[in-house]
Amino acid sequence: MPELRKDPVLGRWTIVATERVLRPADLRGPRTPRRGGPCVFCPGYEHETPPELLAYRDGPTAAPDSPGWRVRVVPNKFPALRREGPVERRGHGLYDLMSGIGAHEVVVESPDHDRDLGALPLPALEDVVRAYRDRLLDLRRDERLRAAVIFKTRGLATATALEHPHAQILATPILPTVLGEEIEQARLYHDYRERCLFCDIVQQELDDGRRLVVVGEHVLAFAPFASRGPFETWILPRRHAAAFESAWPKEQQDLARVLHAVLATLDRLLDAPPLTLLVHTAPFADAESPSFHWHVEVTPQLLPGTGFARGSGLVVNPLPPEDAARFLRDARG
Amino acid sequence: MPELRKDPVLGRWTIVATERVLRPADLRGPRTPRRGGPCVFCPGYEHETPPELLAYRDGPTAAPDSPGWRVRVVPNKFPALRREGPVERRGHGLYDLMSGIGAHEVVVESPDHDRDLGALPLPALEDVVRAYRDRLLDLRRDERLRAAVIFKTRGLATATALEHPHAQILATPILPTVLGEEIEQARLYHDYRERCLFCDIVQQELDDGRRLVVVGEHVLAFAPFASRGPFETWILPRRHAAAFESAWPKEQQDLARVLHAVLATLDRLLDAPPLTLLVHTAPFADAESPSFHWHVEVTPQLLPGTGFARGSGLVVNPLPPEDAARFLRDARG
Repeated sequence: MPELRKDPVLGRWTIVATERVLRPADLRGPRTPRRGGPCVFCPGYEHETPPELLAYRDGPTAAPDSPGWRVRVVPNKFPALRREGPVERRGHGLYDLMSGIGAHEVVVESPDHDRDLGALPLPALEDVVRAYRDRLLDLRRDERLRAAVIFKTRGLATATALEHPHAQILATPILPTVLGEEIEQARLYHDYRERCLFCDIVQQELDDGRRLVVVGEHVLAFAPFASRGPFETWILPRRHAAAFESAWPKEQQDLARVLHAVLATLDRLLDAPPLTLLVHTAPFADAESPSFHWHVEVTPQLLPGTGFARGSGLVVNPLPPEDAARFLRDARG
Repeated sequence: MPELRKDPVLGRWTIVATERVLRPADLRGPRTPRRGGPCVFCPGYEHETPPELLAYRDGPTAAPDSPGWRVRVVPNKFPALRREGPVERRGHGLYDLMSGIGAHEVVVESPDHDRDLGALPLPALEDVVRAYRDRLLDLRRDERLRAAVIFKTRGLATATALEHPHAQILATPILPTVLGEEIEQARLYHDYRERCLFCDIVQQELDDGRRLVVVGEHVLAFAPFASRGPFETWILPRRHAAAFESAWPKEQQDLARVLHAVLATLDRLLDAPPLTLLVHTAPFADAESPSFHWHVEVTPQLLPGTGFARGSGLVVNPLPPEDAARFLRDARG
């Protein structure tokens, strides 16, 4: 059983694995990225994953765990957190720990091994957004789980830009640190102004215009004012809603369209850069929060050397977001 | 003039460069690491850096900015923050920004281009630790500066394991986020227990023993309980002191010895891995804090693919710190 351990100095939780533990030899030397398919996420290999939790198929009579799906969600075969068991908290001297209960799922975003979201047709993006939402609606029914994050990473050192497109969902019995910090800042703002911080950001970005990337009917993509790296892009809905899973169908469709435009533009401008995508949504119990507001963060990972500053929280961004937004607007075909 | 911009959602400051701004072409495609010397930090090239702020030389009569130094500190030629000017704060709609005032220095840790700290003789490490301290003692006299972080990175994608060994010092008019979080957590602990969190950690690690890496007479190296990655190692002094610059000479010497053992062991066990080193020291005005305690964090960067989780604060560590400490103890020659 993995453990959730709290860093007493930073107040952050880390998931410490206890199965499939690495040894020094696994960590030595440069990593060789895996290239090319087919892989376990490809059609025809469904038996190599745990049984599917969700799949969208065209044929109404197709059997589960068989080919023919457009998007497929399965439990992670080697989960960071385990689904079974009670949430137990205990101390260890001055340290705090918890049993590693939670859900760890994989959203296989396309049957096509070689094309990432920016290269897929728009309807495929709509399926992906719908799958994110459907899984959140299911996970929130588990009362042991407090919050979920959806994240996607591609092209970093352990993968390749062509690795089978997928996202991961991690649902936890604790509040992930960054989400907790966002909630707290948004609450402070709301206490003082009696308005949602994110709604105000949407309005200011629309008024200012210099950091806008894509203006959709329901959602907005822009380069955040204090971008932590070149071409960081946030996508926010215009309508206030704390929970991603409460987005209306037409908002989901617009999110798919704007996300597609952002990813395709980044791919064109920066030659399919490594990037991470994060969906921040309210903790399950705060789905009606007046101060939190769901959003998507797309962060190209272009300057690994600046990672030096992560441990200090001091980040130097060598590209002002106003310039980044202008480059992206100009590059949109 | 660079700008310090505050992210209203996370409450974090980012330094946004306004000079030497990058363009998309600078960010496209893989980076080619620079290899081999000589470089601008090598002896004989002193005229290619700004005039030195500090240097330790054997010959008492050597001129500044000439060869013969063992450690040399110079201003960063392309600083993230500018030394000249007043600290001005202002708003921009709902956003907050500040003039980018501060100090950005480079500690050239050795005249030898090809050997990093773990491969240098112990006296060289003692010089490095002393240089860190001497610069902090000087910087704290500038009343515009609130805190300084010392960090070192090596072997990441923009550099190589053999790049000329150096650290950077960034002194800022704001509190770096991570330092601020540590100070707050330590204060909460002190308010409740009337003891220093870090002093208690030192005691618990000594009592427990499983996470110990090197036990020095004055400082201790161990794998932290909630390590965020394999082989993360913290070095803490046994004696309570908030400010690094108030370490006694014999504590500095022991820090050099323990740091040398840690780095040499990591190099041997993990084949000179990419890593970051951070010195966390109290803000200049809190040098006598009863709740903060200076420390050094050494973090091998072994799993760049897990960077996915940085944006969520949810980190999965595939190597329990108890195992990491055992591997390191066994590998110490």
